[in-house]
Amino acid sequence: MKLANVRGTRDYLPKEAIIREKIIDVLKGVFRQYGYSPLDTPALEYFELLSAKYAGGAEILKETFKLKDLGGRMLGLRYDLTVPFSRVIALNPELKMPFKRYQIAKVWRNGPVGLGRYREFMQCDADLVGSKSMKADAEVLAIANSVFKKLNLEAVIRVNNRKIMNAVLEKLGVRNHEDAILVIDKIEKLSKKELIKELNEKGISEEILDVFGGFKELKNVEEFLGTDDGIEEMKELMRYAGCYNINVTFDPFLARGLSFYTGTVFECFLVNNKIKSAVASGGRYDKIIGQLLNSKQDYPAVGISFGLDRIYDALLSAKLVNEIPTTTKVFVVPISDYKVAIDIVERLRRAGINAETDIIGRGISKNLSYVNSLSIPYVIFVGEKEIKSGKFKLRDMKTGKEKMLELKKIIEVLSP
Amino acid sequence: MKLANVRGTRDYLPKEAIIREKIIDVLKGVFRQYGYSPLDTPALEYFELLSAKYAGGAEILKETFKLKDLGGRMLGLRYDLTVPFSRVIALNPELKMPFKRYQIAKVWRNGPVGLGRYREFMQCDADLVGSKSMKADAEVLAIANSVFKKLNLEAVIRVNNRKIMNAVLEKLGVRNHEDAILVIDKIEKLSKKELIKELNEKGISEEILDVFGGFKELKNVEEFLGTDDGIEEMKELMRYAGCYNINVTFDPFLARGLSFYTGTVFECFLVNNKIKSAVASGGRYDKIIGQLLNSKQDYPAVGISFGLDRIYDALLSAKLVNEIPTTTKVFVVPISDYKVAIDIVERLRRAGINAETDIIGRGISKNLSYVNSLSIPYVIFVGEKEIKSGKFKLRDMKTGKEKMLELKKIIEVLSP
Repeated sequence: MKLANVRGTRDYLPKEAIIREKIIDVLKGVFRQYGYSPLDTPALEYFELLSAKYAGGAEILKETFKLKDLGGRMLGLRYDLTVPFSRVIALNPELKMPFKRYQIAKVWRNGPVGLGRYREFMQCDADLVGSKSMKADAEVLAIANSVFKKLNLEAVIRVNNRKIMNAVLEKLGVRNHEDAILVIDKIEKLSKKELIKELNEKGISEEILDVFGGFKELKNVEEFLGTDDGIEEMKELMRYAGCYNINVTFDPFLARGLSFYTGTVFECFLVNNKIKSAVASGGRYDKIIGQLLNSKQDYPAVGISFGLDRIYDALLSAKLVNEIPTTTKVFVVPISDYKVAIDIVERLRRAGINAETDIIGRGISKNLSYVNSLSIPYVIFVGEKEIKSGKFKLRDMKTGKEKMLELKKIIEVLSP
Repeated sequence: MKLANVRGTRDYLPKEAIIREKIIDVLKGVFRQYGYSPLDTPALEYFELLSAKYAGGAEILKETFKLKDLGGRMLGLRYDLTVPFSRVIALNPELKMPFKRYQIAKVWRNGPVGLGRYREFMQCDADLVGSKSMKADAEVLAIANSVFKKLNLEAVIRVNNRKIMNAVLEKLGVRNHEDAILVIDKIEKLSKKELIKELNEKGISEEILDVFGGFKELKNVEEFLGTDDGIEEMKELMRYAGCYNINVTFDPFLARGLSFYTGTVFECFLVNNKIKSAVASGGRYDKIIGQLLNSKQDYPAVGISFGLDRIYDALLSAKLVNEIPTTTKVFVVPISDYKVAIDIVERLRRAGINAETDIIGRGISKNLSYVNSLSIPYVIFVGEKEIKSGKFKLRDMKTGKEKMLELKKIIEVLSP
């Protein structure tokens, strides 16, 4: 047997997992600060639900891992967290609105594997259901803003509204909005020639390029459209975003692909960072839950999804995290009495300091080599002399400096 | 389509998920205090690995969810976290020993569903590899002790050593140790008549009941066995456990089923709690990793697994957690200027206070009914009078008492 992890999946060893947990803790902390609660749903869903009309769609369905339970029923591994979220809302009509939840969990897609394309990956979603107001959309943008501030990453938020795009296309007489939107989404990425080629292939007039290309500000769109629901929503969103002091840029080309969005769409990008693709994105989807549940009831919803892998890469490239992180602050080297070493390491732990000691019975130099390999920043030596005097040698592993200190003083120095 | 979650799986709505995350945070905090680092592995493993000799065994394999990837390779959903842990160790020979990791993640078993038996459940494991010393076993027991102390649950730890059981059976001339161990494991649960029946069925002499039944203390076993490796290990473990001041009870019947344990085995039980089954358990498994990897190298390992569901039930039955928990501390009711309400709620959040405000545009009474339904403990009213005076009405929702306070003072009152 050749040992390997499954193609398209990854192990996260401590050096990566420590940083990923740190990012997840920031996300959870901010989500909770805004009143979002955790929700946990199974990885397994009935295939019938995953393949329902209005669920993920044909493209995603092709990439769904299928399996069977003991009773022979067809199951699938969830490909996103939105379909399970919708199911939970349907099954729990007692939930109070607005229902604000976050879920940070893995999803699976049995698709081609490539650069940045995996078969198992983490989604970090915060969504709310039960509000049509742009106050809700603004809150979601405020969450993005708070997360990147906490991570010390400078971010800009680009927003658009699907209603605006649809109204413009309507006015231009374009029939297939979805095809057109996919081309508009690429206005800043492709050359004019390439864009025209794509439009021609789809039988859409090149005129739309000039019209959309002429939109620099929301004002321009307003001049073209006149009174419009989408423009009103965008103005309102801008006003509420102003209440939060968040910098939001109107981007008339932003579409977020062929997704289920019905109003606001947005993407967050980093400034002064190697990571150029969106680090978070989301929008409003007022129809999907009701459609999926085949319900006449309205389930207006808006949400955001953070890209854990990209945020990880961004923090690393901005040197905002240690490349060899450790959660252990200090290693206690027992030289004579093991009981005293245990006593010290336990007192450190009770004081909230992550601390290790020898559990193999190795000598000083082997313990120090372990400390160095894990970049543990401090060492305390517990020898006979130290035990007698009540002062212990604390070594700063970076500077090599040593001090003889009482344990109380050491705890003060090391306290987080 | 009838909506449902997959049989044998569960949704955790916020009211449960909040408490579960709290328990997980305690576990992670203690694991880190002892120098254990997070490890994350995929839910999917090659079926070849999961079904390897020395992996989970035939019983577990029958219950493994099978599926295929795009390339047609047979995969399985992991049924435990030990097999993936072993694979990671084999694939990363650069890992420094002792390698101490925790992993809190779901596992799947496609077996019968019943009371307390699910097809998807969480495992909370801390393991270390690379130490043969009982110092390592004692550290694992210290982790258990710290976790239950932090959770305010009184626990006792019962320990045994497989080497002792095997040595006794050897001396008694019992051939099939595994069958005998399964019966001994039940000495305190079944009547003597039932035990004898089971032994007769397996062709084992009844004598073992009298011998094991006579073991009250480690001393008795020592008198029966004389010098023995297992007894030496147990004495050493007791000595190190004493260094940690942990109360450990020798239990000569404890076997931990037909598992892969090779030395120390232990189970933790709660005192004064309705939950009578073990809330954590584990032991030493020195062979499994080497065997699984078909390696001549030694991989001595010891670990502990916490039962999240049982700990959850224990906390609830001991009324140590709120039955309607909320993570939100205060709700800001905007009465006139929304911008001021946002300003206040954002300042609360920046001060580390979880705070919500209206995002629907509802009136005061509807907002208060939302607050009540979620048991949010405080409300701040932001009306014109308040804005002018700079003092805001803070209502304690439990007592109904109201105070007019400056925001600075409110932050002091609400700070965690």
